[in-house]
Amino acid sequence: MALAHKGLPFEPVPWRGVEKDRIARSGGETVPVLVDGDRWIGESWDIAIHLETAYAERPSLFGSDDNRAKIRLVDGWCTQTLQPILARAVLVDQFPLLAEEDQAFYQERTLRKYGKTLQELCATPEAAIAELGPALAPLEQALNESKFLGGRKPDYGDYVVFGAFQWARVTTTKRVLPDGSCVAAWFARLLEAFDGFAASQPARGHWS
Amino acid sequence: MALAHKGLPFEPVPWRGVEKDRIARSGGETVPVLVDGDRWIGESWDIAIHLETAYAERPSLFGSDDNRAKIRLVDGWCTQTLQPILARAVLVDQFPLLAEEDQAFYQERTLRKYGKTLQELCATPEAAIAELGPALAPLEQALNESKFLGGRKPDYGDYVVFGAFQWARVTTTKRVLPDGSCVAAWFARLLEAFDGFAASQPARGHWS
Repeated sequence: MALAHKGLPFEPVPWRGVEKDRIARSGGETVPVLVDGDRWIGESWDIAIHLETAYAERPSLFGSDDNRAKIRLVDGWCTQTLQPILARAVLVDQFPLLAEEDQAFYQERTLRKYGKTLQELCATPEAAIAELGPALAPLEQALNESKFLGGRKPDYGDYVVFGAFQWARVTTTKRVLPDGSCVAAWFARLLEAFDGFAASQPARGHWS
Repeated sequence: MALAHKGLPFEPVPWRGVEKDRIARSGGETVPVLVDGDRWIGESWDIAIHLETAYAERPSLFGSDDNRAKIRLVDGWCTQTLQPILARAVLVDQFPLLAEEDQAFYQERTLRKYGKTLQELCATPEAAIAELGPALAPLEQALNESKFLGGRKPDYGDYVVFGAFQWARVTTTKRVLPDGSCVAAWFARLLEAFDGFAASQPARGHWS
């Protein structure tokens, strides 16, 4: 979404969780990784900062430098509040879609990150989805008054949160977004952005 | 802090939780209430919007209208994540400071808001303070890269979060802010803002 926002052409490269060697030049072991010429950059936030700096003449991802701290807090809220709940609802549906060697990897990663096996973490996906409503209250309230977190247009804060839901959209058959909510309407708007770029990724279940 | 930011003169009026009649014209039962001429406005967010609109020629609380959604999310994060933890650390210290008629009121309010008596809610303030570190991670990360949530200068998002800690500062003797953290340094900067306006309220314990 950040690359589309900047209007930069790119080629997505499929990758499996176990293939650490293929991304070693990023200095990390996780995706996303951006390869821009001879630069390899890991971590979403660092990628966004790179794009903003290296392509400063293109549409801004942050609006202004003074917005970075607030967008970083949005990013932190997503990691702290949203992603752990989504994981409990969604990981169990993602699991059977994985290649065999990645299944072991994601089991180990879940154990390390949450101190539980994947099956334990996802024992009650319905409870996780029920928690999602109240957990989304700050986002719902923010989007009740604005079209995007960025205001009239989306910014990098929108894409961070959108990414978490897009992950759910492509992996789970469950209904995750509260029907009729401002968050659901906002998600639908972002799916259609950039000529339906995100919508072109097939949903696994019934998503708008 | 919002009034100081706008450079507007004002007179603070002491008020007790039980004195609903005195603020009835705001349409609500809680403070803050702003009385501006013949307008009575309750709810912090609505007060901020009023100040921004009515005093548009003075320093902006939001930077631009496009920032409102992000600042509303900061506001929501504060309510959702920060305040419940602070309440568990601080309410028990505030309680004996209250007038007798307000003690009953705050007991009832705590029961309604948290489904627990004040003593139950605050049974392990040390545990609450220990939780505060990880809970503050998004704020710490945001302030690691910027002087304020507003960037080079504070905005309304800073004041929302500052207010929660200032409440703790004036009521508890406990150390709440992690020593040496970016959050602690940011709090100290805001205490000194506007010629030390917030610092002039006496701290109960050892705060910077």
